[in-house]
Amino acid sequence: MELYIEREALSRGLSRIQGIIERRGTLPVLANVLLHAREGGLRLTGTDTEVAFLEELDANVESAGELAVDAAGLFQVVRTLPDATVHLKVAAGNRLEIVSGRASFRLLGIAAEEYPALAPFSSQGTAKMAEADLKRLVDQVSFSVAKEEIRYGLNGAHVEDASTDDEKKIRWVATDGHRLALAEAPFEGEFAFTQRMLVPKKALEVLKKLLDRAGQDAIELDFGDGAMQLRRGGQTFWFRLLEGEFPDYTAVVPKEHKHRARVRRSELSDTLRRVSVLVADRARAVGFSFAGAELEVQVNNVDRGEVRESVPIELDGEDISVGFNARYLQDILAVMPGDFVELSLAHPLAPCLVRNPEIASSTFVVMPMRLD
Amino acid sequence: MELYIEREALSRGLSRIQGIIERRGTLPVLANVLLHAREGGLRLTGTDTEVAFLEELDANVESAGELAVDAAGLFQVVRTLPDATVHLKVAAGNRLEIVSGRASFRLLGIAAEEYPALAPFSSQGTAKMAEADLKRLVDQVSFSVAKEEIRYGLNGAHVEDASTDDEKKIRWVATDGHRLALAEAPFEGEFAFTQRMLVPKKALEVLKKLLDRAGQDAIELDFGDGAMQLRRGGQTFWFRLLEGEFPDYTAVVPKEHKHRARVRRSELSDTLRRVSVLVADRARAVGFSFAGAELEVQVNNVDRGEVRESVPIELDGEDISVGFNARYLQDILAVMPGDFVELSLAHPLAPCLVRNPEIASSTFVVMPMRLD
Repeated sequence: MELYIEREALSRGLSRIQGIIERRGTLPVLANVLLHAREGGLRLTGTDTEVAFLEELDANVESAGELAVDAAGLFQVVRTLPDATVHLKVAAGNRLEIVSGRASFRLLGIAAEEYPALAPFSSQGTAKMAEADLKRLVDQVSFSVAKEEIRYGLNGAHVEDASTDDEKKIRWVATDGHRLALAEAPFEGEFAFTQRMLVPKKALEVLKKLLDRAGQDAIELDFGDGAMQLRRGGQTFWFRLLEGEFPDYTAVVPKEHKHRARVRRSELSDTLRRVSVLVADRARAVGFSFAGAELEVQVNNVDRGEVRESVPIELDGEDISVGFNARYLQDILAVMPGDFVELSLAHPLAPCLVRNPEIASSTFVVMPMRLD
Repeated sequence: MELYIEREALSRGLSRIQGIIERRGTLPVLANVLLHAREGGLRLTGTDTEVAFLEELDANVESAGELAVDAAGLFQVVRTLPDATVHLKVAAGNRLEIVSGRASFRLLGIAAEEYPALAPFSSQGTAKMAEADLKRLVDQVSFSVAKEEIRYGLNGAHVEDASTDDEKKIRWVATDGHRLALAEAPFEGEFAFTQRMLVPKKALEVLKKLLDRAGQDAIELDFGDGAMQLRRGGQTFWFRLLEGEFPDYTAVVPKEHKHRARVRRSELSDTLRRVSVLVADRARAVGFSFAGAELEVQVNNVDRGEVRESVPIELDGEDISVGFNARYLQDILAVMPGDFVELSLAHPLAPCLVRNPEIASSTFVVMPMRLD
């Protein structure tokens, strides 16, 4: 293997690989990135066996070949190289020679044969959607995925076809039992899951980093058997899906609202940030009193003191007092679209619907807390 | 106690106090900041008994009084307040009422009598120097202070009067036995230490944060009995000095140089950054071969590979090879003045003098390492 490649392109590719690799995994070989040079380009592969990332980079390849090299070490080296062009060459004893300007490295690698083969993938169908939309779906639901691995059925994001006669829509939903997030976006092509599958947390974390809210790319989603694959340009992100009976979430989204308060999103968020200073670590309950044109938010902390703050609202319905976990509401406010948010409740212990009534593509639910 | 104060001024003052306070100290009362309102202003006091910081802030005081409040909690609250003005008032039960815009906090405090009294300080004499100069002295020597508490006599920075007939100079020196840093700056007034005293690491860390390299203030240094006090505007930073026999460092600074290499500082630093990627965690030895117009820097790591890089130099004297701890040299290069650095050696195992020959105000020494 021998090739010339641009340092910045190689560095960016290796940077993306870092997010895939488990540094403290049980299989040491997985700390490596597989380099595979063929006519016209260099392919980088990184995997932890649950997720895998492949990227084809332009390179001037003089001779084909493969080698696996410690991914973190190679990235550290490449990002500091002095010259804009990097010369890579495999030398005797699985050494990777890296020459750039006055610097000359020889890193110990391992034979490509020792690198694990990726799981075979066959697509049952392919959908296509905008990068910015997919990024939004991931951001809007991933914080609601159950933190504990044991919450079988809740430890990933549920993906389903929510198309109507008028439009094709893909829906992502996540809940940990305390809050629920649901987001939709248009797609083209074919939605090909035949059973309920969950996108695991690791894949969500990787997607957050790979995708850009301002991204202009079209992303292709290949639906496989127990796995999914996302493609964009020369990049392929593969991940295993979780089996698990995601609950019938439609029962949780409240339909009846006796009390509906409209509030400026940034004002509510600023207030919650301030009052959260006094929220005790265990019970994160904050008191919300909706009364007339004012919401009074209140925290009492026996060890540290109290705080009260009022926020102007438009209230539709009678006055009502309720407790919320401030963190849960903050998570929702942070990913919601638009300037206003509407909180809708049937009674103080009923699930609270949180949404922007003008923007139907996302809906959130947060369970109230009892205030002592 | 009741007063009105600008949020930004109070927030900045409380931010400085955070660096003083030991959050996990043995005396819980020291987690507090003491608020003391008097006619014309509010004084903040924070201490860990080894260092103390006092700041006088402008405030519109309606009634005098004192209260101690959790410093981290108060800072968290104040920095998020919605309005530019803050109303502080002590209410029944040692509660501090904080009102700003729509937000109203009541923090539990403790009576000022429970806050420890500061050690009495009487100045034996006062020197005066420029803030930028003092910041440079602290930055240029503090990294060389011995890390281990047990290195009695080396666990702080030595301060001495280095005045000549022509000029008054203060000199700060630190060494951990592996490297030495010495820096000088002009002062006015009186240098009044009568015995050798060391500035401890905590005081150096606080000074790094309090002082600004672009700072225009004049700093007053009060020399006390076993303590020192630095003053600027309404701020006073007091710290206890360490007793300890700082060694006769003049013997360590080499006078004889058979080999002298001049190199561009940024080039050497970039090279060291790159080759350091392959330096093993324990032995940080990097090979330096000075030969003709080139310095070849080299690292061999049996587990990971090798790297070589050459840097153009001007060599005065014969070729020579020597080993250095790359980290130690990097620390020096980071704080050195000017574009060029000169490395001077008598032989491969002699201390190496590192300085900019055009700028006499700082001098560094690094001990070589044996290369295996």
